[in-house]
Amino acid sequence: MQTGTLFTVSAPSGAGKTSLVKALVDSDSQVTVSVSHTTRPMRPGERDGVNYHFVDRDAFVEMLNRNAFLEHAQVFDNFYGTSREWVEQTLASGRDVILEIDWQGAAQVRRLLPDTVGIFILPPSQQALRERLTGRGQDEQSVIEKRMAQAIDEMSHYVEADYLVINDNFDEALRELRAIVTAQRSRLQCQQQRHGALLEALLHH
Amino acid sequence: MQTGTLFTVSAPSGAGKTSLVKALVDSDSQVTVSVSHTTRPMRPGERDGVNYHFVDRDAFVEMLNRNAFLEHAQVFDNFYGTSREWVEQTLASGRDVILEIDWQGAAQVRRLLPDTVGIFILPPSQQALRERLTGRGQDEQSVIEKRMAQAIDEMSHYVEADYLVINDNFDEALRELRAIVTAQRSRLQCQQQRHGALLEALLHH
Repeated sequence: MQTGTLFTVSAPSGAGKTSLVKALVDSDSQVTVSVSHTTRPMRPGERDGVNYHFVDRDAFVEMLNRNAFLEHAQVFDNFYGTSREWVEQTLASGRDVILEIDWQGAAQVRRLLPDTVGIFILPPSQQALRERLTGRGQDEQSVIEKRMAQAIDEMSHYVEADYLVINDNFDEALRELRAIVTAQRSRLQCQQQRHGALLEALLHH
Repeated sequence: MQTGTLFTVSAPSGAGKTSLVKALVDSDSQVTVSVSHTTRPMRPGERDGVNYHFVDRDAFVEMLNRNAFLEHAQVFDNFYGTSREWVEQTLASGRDVILEIDWQGAAQVRRLLPDTVGIFILPPSQQALRERLTGRGQDEQSVIEKRMAQAIDEMSHYVEADYLVINDNFDEALRELRAIVTAQRSRLQCQQQRHGALLEALLHH
């Protein structure tokens, strides 16, 4: 029985979560990111099965009814969900899975799978976060303030995570994220699952 | 309050523990190895304060009586012990401390300091271990068998550790050991101690 670890990675918008996770996955073939299902329309440049699995509302509700999601959320009129079957199969194959989700999704997943390892990525300061949120365009002050309030609300849930990564320097944050994923593979329970025969032979008199 | 993590590293003789810990400490200035006190005589090439703190029996017993050791053991006529004061001061300064001790010492330390992280290093097979134990000299078969039995007895306690590192390839084992130490610094409790002011400012409305 090969079993990978499920990680949730949460962060406020602007903390650099997506770039860090992409760099991690690009450098480590044992870990993969879950692609969510969504009912929102595909945007230019997006690809089905890469950015999201794009499904219509009926298909999403049908999946919801047969308990096919590990977690799901509604944002305005659109649904988003994480396929339970895909996650379970990938973990069973021995690969690690990362879910990029907000604190509410992470909490749903943790209730179903208590061995999930929660990681929270934080900016080094409100000032740095504000610059990153402002830098995205010529938005009005009120829009930026609303984003800041949302970010602070999301960040207030960092205490529910097992690990915190403060993204002050990208390379340093990536190094920390990589160490968390690598170290998890050396945990007693993971090693017992992976190397059961080796451990038994080692103690044989 | 800066607080490092205390690690115990245990292994059977021949698993490569000392070389791995030396390579780890040489490459990471935040982590240091505890130097034990001992009553055994200094051997040629050894230096006081480097290999051991060499003390006489009266001094050792005096330290024992004032509860100055985190753990101690008697091997034949010699005493060995880990200075509680030094470990506590080093952890308080924010550095991580590694104790290279057997499973019995690790158990003593864990009882006193439950946050201690236990790491066990194992050889990839009995055959590999036998080669390493034999390779040390032209010892008689009965001596080697006795060492093997001791090694198997020590290894049987791997289940008490938090992390297992299988030393099949030195560089890979070192990478895993490094990841365990690095990841520990990102744990929520460690980050809250290290970055309390940053976290408070981040959530300020």
